Amino acid sequence: MPFQYLTNVPLDEAKGEYLKILINNGMAPKTEVISVAAAAGRVTASPVYARICAPHYNASAMDGIALDAKLTFGASETTPVSLTGNQYTRIDTGDPLPEGCDAVVMIEDVIESGGGVVKLFEAAAPWQHIRQIGEDICAGEMVLPSYSPITPAALGAMIASGVREVSVIRSPIVGIIPTGDELVLPMSDPKKGEILEFNSAIFSAMLREWGAETVIYPVVRDDLAMMREALDEALSRCDVIILNAGSSAGSEDYAAEAIALTGSVAYHGLAIKPGKPAILGYSGSKPILGVPGYPVSGIIVIEQILRPIIDYLCRKTSETDRYIDAVLSKAMVSSLKYQEFVRVRMGFVNDRLIASPLSRGSGVVTSFMKADGLVVIPQGVEGYESETAVSVRLLRPEQELRRNLVIIGSHDPLIDELAELLRVENDDINLSSAHVGSMGGLLAVRKGEAHLAGTHLLDETSGEYNVSYVRKILPEGGARLVECVERAQGLILRKGNPKGIRGIADLGQAGLRYVNRQKGSGTRILIDYLCRKNSVDTSEIYGYDREEFTHTSVAALIAADSADAGLGIYSAAKMYDLDFVPIWQERYDLLIPDYAWDMPMMKKLLDVIRSDVFHGRLEALGGYTIKNPGSVRERF
Amino acid sequence: MPFQYLTNVPLDEAKGEYLKILINNGMAPKTEVISVAAAAGRVTASPVYARICAPHYNASAMDGIALDAKLTFGASETTPVSLTGNQYTRIDTGDPLPEGCDAVVMIEDVIESGGGVVKLFEAAAPWQHIRQIGEDICAGEMVLPSYSPITPAALGAMIASGVREVSVIRSPIVGIIPTGDELVLPMSDPKKGEILEFNSAIFSAMLREWGAETVIYPVVRDDLAMMREALDEALSRCDVIILNAGSSAGSEDYAAEAIALTGSVAYHGLAIKPGKPAILGYSGSKPILGVPGYPVSGIIVIEQILRPIIDYLCRKTSETDRYIDAVLSKAMVSSLKYQEFVRVRMGFVNDRLIASPLSRGSGVVTSFMKADGLVVIPQGVEGYESETAVSVRLLRPEQELRRNLVIIGSHDPLIDELAELLRVENDDINLSSAHVGSMGGLLAVRKGEAHLAGTHLLDETSGEYNVSYVRKILPEGGARLVECVERAQGLILRKGNPKGIRGIADLGQAGLRYVNRQKGSGTRILIDYLCRKNSVDTSEIYGYDREEFTHTSVAALIAADSADAGLGIYSAAKMYDLDFVPIWQERYDLLIPDYAWDMPMMKKLLDVIRSDVFHGRLEALGGYTIKNPGSVRERF
Repeated sequence: MPFQYLTNVPLDEAKGEYLKILINNGMAPKTEVISVAAAAGRVTASPVYARICAPHYNASAMDGIALDAKLTFGASETTPVSLTGNQYTRIDTGDPLPEGCDAVVMIEDVIESGGGVVKLFEAAAPWQHIRQIGEDICAGEMVLPSYSPITPAALGAMIASGVREVSVIRSPIVGIIPTGDELVLPMSDPKKGEILEFNSAIFSAMLREWGAETVIYPVVRDDLAMMREALDEALSRCDVIILNAGSSAGSEDYAAEAIALTGSVAYHGLAIKPGKPAILGYSGSKPILGVPGYPVSGIIVIEQILRPIIDYLCRKTSETDRYIDAVLSKAMVSSLKYQEFVRVRMGFVNDRLIASPLSRGSGVVTSFMKADGLVVIPQGVEGYESETAVSVRLLRPEQELRRNLVIIGSHDPLIDELAELLRVENDDINLSSAHVGSMGGLLAVRKGEAHLAGTHLLDETSGEYNVSYVRKILPEGGARLVECVERAQGLILRKGNPKGIRGIADLGQAGLRYVNRQKGSGTRILIDYLCRKNSVDTSEIYGYDREEFTHTSVAALIAADSADAGLGIYSAAKMYDLDFVPIWQERYDLLIPDYAWDMPMMKKLLDVIRSDVFHGRLEALGGYTIKNPGSVRERF
Repeated sequence: MPFQYLTNVPLDEAKGEYLKILINNGMAPKTEVISVAAAAGRVTASPVYARICAPHYNASAMDGIALDAKLTFGASETTPVSLTGNQYTRIDTGDPLPEGCDAVVMIEDVIESGGGVVKLFEAAAPWQHIRQIGEDICAGEMVLPSYSPITPAALGAMIASGVREVSVIRSPIVGIIPTGDELVLPMSDPKKGEILEFNSAIFSAMLREWGAETVIYPVVRDDLAMMREALDEALSRCDVIILNAGSSAGSEDYAAEAIALTGSVAYHGLAIKPGKPAILGYSGSKPILGVPGYPVSGIIVIEQILRPIIDYLCRKTSETDRYIDAVLSKAMVSSLKYQEFVRVRMGFVNDRLIASPLSRGSGVVTSFMKADGLVVIPQGVEGYESETAVSVRLLRPEQELRRNLVIIGSHDPLIDELAELLRVENDDINLSSAHVGSMGGLLAVRKGEAHLAGTHLLDETSGEYNVSYVRKILPEGGARLVECVERAQGLILRKGNPKGIRGIADLGQAGLRYVNRQKGSGTRILIDYLCRKNSVDTSEIYGYDREEFTHTSVAALIAADSADAGLGIYSAAKMYDLDFVPIWQERYDLLIPDYAWDMPMMKKLLDVIRSDVFHGRLEALGGYTIKNPGSVRERF
């Protein structure tokens, strides 16, 4: 069945209906009786009553002597009462109150006067310094009602009241069935066409965070019969089943059919993006969720559809999501047809919380790893302009966002090393970097969206770096240009330089596949300039329009023989053990706006930049020249 | 060494110094290398670099045909391009891009025209619909810096980039050594003098919540040599040690000595309450914490002293505590000498958040179980007046407080059953009850501190219940008196009535031990009245001043032969299988202020009160007469 046959049901409608169907079919929390000692963090399934009183006997609350209070009546500073050895009993905290005693006098108030006789200068009140039976809990009292989370203190209260076993909600068991001919188990050297099976690990970790147990089944091939077999096996053991991939409607997508033949399909196709080709199916009271193969789609579908079900089965009301208002750094276009979920990173810059959209590719799992929050664009909304204030669902506590130091601009592997050293020195700072090229970095600083920007913009006329660009973009000034490194730019070539490329002039040669950097990046500006200088017609260079956003990805494509050459820095070539023809030495500076200059985080970053350990890392990366890193070159 | 030798060091000073000493002695997080699949929720100990690119080959992002984009240049609606079978390759999502191809055309846009020939009406852009190598991650890139929490998505990113093992922070191992001659393992029938050992279970659950592993050692007797032996064994295996009890300075308190002989004692005695007799000791880099025996003291000490240490060893910054402003329902007196930690329950009543102090006894573990928050009274502050606004540290999410339905007033076991049925019917409502007697309940309603109050106040002149009292206390009106039950009050007596008590007149007899209810409780008012009526001089009744706060605790003391008689309700006598001489039939009503009448929670409570299942519970409890529960008797 071709794509267009998928329905496009609004998320909330499908969600609500699906849960209703399942509950009508008898989906309900299960219970189990476990030892109290093992019950921490669980939820009670029935009321817990005290078996005994706590304390279960009248106990002394002090070290001292136990006695019959009546004997002390009338005692005072002037008329002390004397008691002989048989009129009191030495007693320690926790000891049971002896027969005939109804009070305890603290040892500090007892004056020995020889021969076991003691003097008391104050009358004892009946029941003073005694922990009476049931002071904490009385036998028969309800310690906890049903559906109460068992906190450490509740655990203690149950044991103290003689409860040994407790009936609790059993964690639902979720079976995860990965499917796909191309899937292989995690390894370090997969072959072309082999896809590492990591979705199950992600889903399992999410579900366990929510309180479920998980079973990951072996990979099933794209075969209807095998899928049905796997579903039957999972149904025999699990309460909830995830069938991962094959949920779309391509020639090899059997999930919907398999679920329909095993049970029923309530919905196939949701009006969400990513995640549209989801299958909301079930067998009796057991949900069977068909999840798209792309990790990001899968995460969204499982979070949206399965989380409420897991909460229901765990009988707990999960922490309501927290939202925060932020300003968009970039426009977000969205289709009217779908409710869209966009991952964003955030940072408090110049007193505003800025949200920057991350890659929206549903295969880009790092977008979720880096995400601080999630922006939901409702169905029927075309998206948001840049600078719009949006409400963002927090994926990290707000306090962590306040520790995000935002660097936007030109890419260099040294940024990762800075991030690492900042963690090591001050493990609470996150250097949050976005690679949008040097120009993008300068604009971000002007718009007040970055704490700093990496830049290496060549002024062709003066041969100077960055200064003239900053003047143009920040005419009012309000920033410092801080020296970082000088680095070698050159042609990154396949190992052994099979195409015998000696320089820019050779880039036009037939059969050569070039890979370029995006417009606005310093490296793109440099290659444009170098081509003019060497009078090479860039339209002659095959792949000149093939744009990558980092030096590393340019090198990666060349290393994989997907391209022959690309301009980039030496450290990227070295990382992949590629050939390198040095062509240019350039400055890589940092532009730091005044509004960020005095931040303690910035001071710590500059300390790192000046540190020997950082310089050591640069040498290891290779291709860098260090002069006065961290020194202010120019103030604007 | 007697008590006064304990120091009284301010908490923050001791805390800070202690951590410094430990770090100077080399206390540091430990690391371990584990399989990525098992790393969810852990924290990285070193940076993680990608081993391979993700994707690691150029893959089709669609089902369609792969081809060389050049072949399609110029194609349009009017001038379609035809390709023969050898010019393209059928390809599915995830398949590797064949040699010589640099674009994919979606199957929907491919028109078959027989003989394997296909027509295209649009030119393909190079690299369209292709997931290029490294789109997600490039080999050599840093996936995660050190000290990053491993989220589900991070887990996926590591596997996707070919990482199989990861170095993570090892959970610190905390050894818990319970000590005390009187301690016995959890059971349901301890003998007099035997104390159930439940502290270890509480502490262990707390520490595990914070990310530590725990080892609970067998109970050690109060013997110096044995304690030292236990400490040595624990030191050989654990990173942190808790020595529970014996931390004070009584005749059998060896903890300080044992720690001093094994390592060193930094502080013995903190200016906090509860928790003063804490011992901050260490052996080299390993903390040895001497913790008081009372559970509440222990919880406070471990939370205050050990949590920052566990966070440090787990290398994570724990969620900062959340605070909320609330109004105190009762005055809190505190000693100038100590920083005091008071547990409170809270509820949103009449648009104010009310905080009511719970029992401050350091042996009352239920006070922590019931606590919604913690009020800290600083050292040097004498306490707070009632109605003071205080900042409360939340022990539960605020949203849960909004689901607290607060009932304050007279005690009856039926309140527990109401709580249970509310949970079962609507598992998000917590009926939060405080037993302060009928008068206390009416006052709470007047002060706007309770959603409702249970009351059974006899008007001696009219013989009527509650109405005249409500008129007196709420002259302005603004409340409804709702019928709940009638119940039998009588003398609760020891099984078989050994003292042959027939009625009130016998309470004065010699050798009889009476146990009373607190002043202001309906039952106390009733017994005062009954004594007058029977011309019994209450000063003749032994134990008339011995005050308990619930019917259950009165019955519990009689059952334990700590008293012979007490006035109370039948259900309490039945609970303990005691004799009962019925004396009076009384109304137990609910007073519901107008400000709470329309709350959805209140409607649900009244539904429960009217339900058959509740009436069934009442019959099981015994001694109740049900007429029109839930109906409004009188409106004020």
